[in-house]
Amino acid sequence: MTTPNAKKARTTGIGLGFGFSLLLSSVAQPVFGQELPTMSEDAFEGAKQTYFEQCAGCHGVLRKGATGKHLLPEVKVKNDDGTETVTGTLKLGQDRLERIITWGTEGGMNNFDGILTPEQITDLATYIQIDPPKPPEMSLAQMKETRKVYIEPEDYPTEPLHGRNWENFFVVIERDVGKVAVIDGDTKEVLVHIPTGYAVHVLKASEHHSINEPENPGRFWYTMGRDGKMTKIDLWQKPENMLVAEVKIAYDARDVAVSGDGKYVIGGGYWPPHFAIVDAETMEPRKVVSTRGMNVDGEYVEESRVAAIYTTPHEPTWVVAIKELGQIWQVDYSDIDNLRIDKIDNSKFLHDGFFDPTGRYFQIAANASNQMVVVDTKTRKLEATIDTKALPHPGPGANWIDPNCGPVGGTTHLGTGYVTVWGNDPVNRADDAWKICYEVETDGPGLFIRTHPNSDYVWADQTLHPEPEIQQSVQVISKETGEIVKTIQLTETEGYVAVHFEFNQDGSEVWASVWNRKDSKTDNGEIVVFDAQTLEEKYRIKGLFAPTGKFNVYNRSNHKT
Amino acid sequence: MTTPNAKKARTTGIGLGFGFSLLLSSVAQPVFGQELPTMSEDAFEGAKQTYFEQCAGCHGVLRKGATGKHLLPEVKVKNDDGTETVTGTLKLGQDRLERIITWGTEGGMNNFDGILTPEQITDLATYIQIDPPKPPEMSLAQMKETRKVYIEPEDYPTEPLHGRNWENFFVVIERDVGKVAVIDGDTKEVLVHIPTGYAVHVLKASEHHSINEPENPGRFWYTMGRDGKMTKIDLWQKPENMLVAEVKIAYDARDVAVSGDGKYVIGGGYWPPHFAIVDAETMEPRKVVSTRGMNVDGEYVEESRVAAIYTTPHEPTWVVAIKELGQIWQVDYSDIDNLRIDKIDNSKFLHDGFFDPTGRYFQIAANASNQMVVVDTKTRKLEATIDTKALPHPGPGANWIDPNCGPVGGTTHLGTGYVTVWGNDPVNRADDAWKICYEVETDGPGLFIRTHPNSDYVWADQTLHPEPEIQQSVQVISKETGEIVKTIQLTETEGYVAVHFEFNQDGSEVWASVWNRKDSKTDNGEIVVFDAQTLEEKYRIKGLFAPTGKFNVYNRSNHKT
Repeated sequence: MTTPNAKKARTTGIGLGFGFSLLLSSVAQPVFGQELPTMSEDAFEGAKQTYFEQCAGCHGVLRKGATGKHLLPEVKVKNDDGTETVTGTLKLGQDRLERIITWGTEGGMNNFDGILTPEQITDLATYIQIDPPKPPEMSLAQMKETRKVYIEPEDYPTEPLHGRNWENFFVVIERDVGKVAVIDGDTKEVLVHIPTGYAVHVLKASEHHSINEPENPGRFWYTMGRDGKMTKIDLWQKPENMLVAEVKIAYDARDVAVSGDGKYVIGGGYWPPHFAIVDAETMEPRKVVSTRGMNVDGEYVEESRVAAIYTTPHEPTWVVAIKELGQIWQVDYSDIDNLRIDKIDNSKFLHDGFFDPTGRYFQIAANASNQMVVVDTKTRKLEATIDTKALPHPGPGANWIDPNCGPVGGTTHLGTGYVTVWGNDPVNRADDAWKICYEVETDGPGLFIRTHPNSDYVWADQTLHPEPEIQQSVQVISKETGEIVKTIQLTETEGYVAVHFEFNQDGSEVWASVWNRKDSKTDNGEIVVFDAQTLEEKYRIKGLFAPTGKFNVYNRSNHKT
Repeated sequence: MTTPNAKKARTTGIGLGFGFSLLLSSVAQPVFGQELPTMSEDAFEGAKQTYFEQCAGCHGVLRKGATGKHLLPEVKVKNDDGTETVTGTLKLGQDRLERIITWGTEGGMNNFDGILTPEQITDLATYIQIDPPKPPEMSLAQMKETRKVYIEPEDYPTEPLHGRNWENFFVVIERDVGKVAVIDGDTKEVLVHIPTGYAVHVLKASEHHSINEPENPGRFWYTMGRDGKMTKIDLWQKPENMLVAEVKIAYDARDVAVSGDGKYVIGGGYWPPHFAIVDAETMEPRKVVSTRGMNVDGEYVEESRVAAIYTTPHEPTWVVAIKELGQIWQVDYSDIDNLRIDKIDNSKFLHDGFFDPTGRYFQIAANASNQMVVVDTKTRKLEATIDTKALPHPGPGANWIDPNCGPVGGTTHLGTGYVTVWGNDPVNRADDAWKICYEVETDGPGLFIRTHPNSDYVWADQTLHPEPEIQQSVQVISKETGEIVKTIQLTETEGYVAVHFEFNQDGSEVWASVWNRKDSKTDNGEIVVFDAQTLEEKYRIKGLFAPTGKFNVYNRSNHKT
């Protein structure tokens, strides 16, 4: 790989050459003649795929870093005294990199022992010492070629083709096999495993609070795979026919949302960094908007990725979080040929978020900035910024009423074992709004927090702690006292972890996942169903492939958190 | 240069490799082993500079083409039958390229004999057969470092420091020496040659029609050099002190505009493709917005350049034309931390434009699409598209009243010897609005058209015709009959051409430039002053360096065209 490195070194810094003194790009290339690690084309391609599946989410495909650190071969930083400090994966070296990948770090880096083979870890450590290959672009025409329609809209049923209570269905992500399972929440039966994109990150359905209320909210579900494949699911179909259409809008992606009027679906790309607006009925791509841009520090970012996308309940818009830019773009879908975008400056490395109970304020984690950012979707402006402990990550988030602070929201943290709780009612509780109400120390850093209006408790996982017993346990916090009332270990199987919660329609049950990370392509995963009041285990749903996120149809299409 | 070409060939098309079949990038790289032209590093750097100064405007720094054709070594186009057609500069070859550069083409390509030396033309022909070097980015911090303040705002005078009628000053671009001359329109004296950026493309001042009327419209002028340097000029200062501040916002740029409230100046970059919002008083850069994006065909464009920028008289916005995207971005400056942008889809290769007399509609040339595009700045939406003959180019444009069609606008064409005239009053003359009223055949393709409310005539140049006598002549069209009433040759000096018009404050004079292209760095250029009524020559202003664009303070700050 010396030739490409050398070539880049040769051209790096070629300017237009007319007298403007350039700062060097902060990303330098290894210089001529330096000893560089090499690997076979096969090993390179294999490691590239492993990197995409396991690392790109936090470190970026161009490896410039985001939630995770940069993973570039060599980065030169100019110090104030004019000297240069050199960092990068070449400096860390093969052994150190292998150890970090194997055992993880305190700072939120996962441990991959038992998940990747020693050979995969060795190749990965070598791969990240070589310049990242730049992935290709994707045009609207290319997207259109990927569209597949399994059932034409005119053939959709006019009533459910099964006698089931579909509003209490759970749609469950089966991460590593690229499927979602549909589970009947009343009978606990697994109805079907629907093929979707790889490692679906989230699903969305039209919502009750939509400005233009769609019929039967929650009937149609849209998934976004990490490979950029969007699928449309119709819960009124017989289970074997629920997948009705699909289209690929990126090579790497995370989120999806439906417009309030039900006309469009929007999919956000990690690579290429863009979002695509798709016809919600036919899944025909209509428009692509690049999200490459200047970040809030005024620096150009080529890999400025689309993180969370949510439909605003009271405006004809989506909030689109551009991770590396530190901007929320409020995108107005009322006229997509004259597309209005309000670019709201806030904080870098935006990740996931949730609305306050009124649906006006969007609360989102700027996780590597250690902040929660609040956007007022009515004024389309920044409302507040809340400083928190390391790396907040609310997932679906949780809103409830606190006896002292009134309405509050809460988040878990990737970087530390705390749950942070803040006031979120600026209208009636202005003094408490957007200030931390209290923090709860948990046993370890986690990914998800969840509650339900009918529940007295808030549930938090601690999936990111390196110790098995803690990874495998979840904690239950009392809304009344703000204290942890119970810690529950869901599994003792080595290489399995506990993750993510969802309540059933009436809030009487809490569903938590046993994610069989070690053998995630087998159906050894489980969902443990708890009585939401007694906190006792009621039932285990088995036969699931790496179950992670769970989405109850009624709760998710009615904004109850 | 075979190594870099080979390297690119090796990496082109490396994807993320997980089962999405990629269309090849339409820009292929020469394959291994092919004989490629070579040149010394010195010749390469020299040709790079020549290319920037003479070619990049129409062909792009990445040479993907815009107003002009692409100039890439090799481009493979997939035909419908699956076969490939190969085009590009390698196929054309050294001799053919040298001939085209030397003699120009019928299609609007300039002839460079007498402007470039034979050696420069030879090197340029070789240079464009080699992969274009990619210029660097520019951050907000880099821009801030370039700011120079010559006179602090608190030291600005409270009244003019000269007894002159500054509202009839002309600010004249002296293209190739990187200066603007200030000329007293009453006395015809050249007061000063102010150093600015290289080859200033346009100047702007605050306008009378501004929503928030500034004091003394036309006092402060802002220039944009082709090298991205913006300068601020105060016409109340003594001539030697008129340059008060400057800042560089790009390496290659064209346009600049002031906000209606006088608070901000916006500068548009060709490279990097972005615009910068600058404090109008201090010239401190405040915000940068990248214009890289997806074009109206849904393809990603890395070099999507900012062409025309204008302040909308009745909205707190600028219209920013993104040339390669085929979009007008209407940028709202009322809150730049929550920046609203309406992205109005229209036609590709937008260039320059002008408002209708009411200031509501912006009329802009999409020149390589052979269209005039009209945007309604009140609704922030596309109003109309008018198909025209080849490559419309209005420059400052012209609006007048036609006896048959009522209010009309007109444009010259880069690609053909015609002036196109269309109705532009959709309120009172809906049947005529945005339809061609008539076309006038001139002697050759030109750059600029101009008139004045007090004049019976419309003036057009034909600078782009290859024949000297035609390049050197301008034509005068009667508003009453729509016919050419006079053709005037301004110069007979070989290598000199006639270009651009401006009226004086009361419309009694027309000023036209003799652009001494051949020896443009000497002061052999002239402005010929005509009686606007008799069309007779009155006076010659001498001692000017390559005078091109001329801006009368009163006319330009009062929207009279």
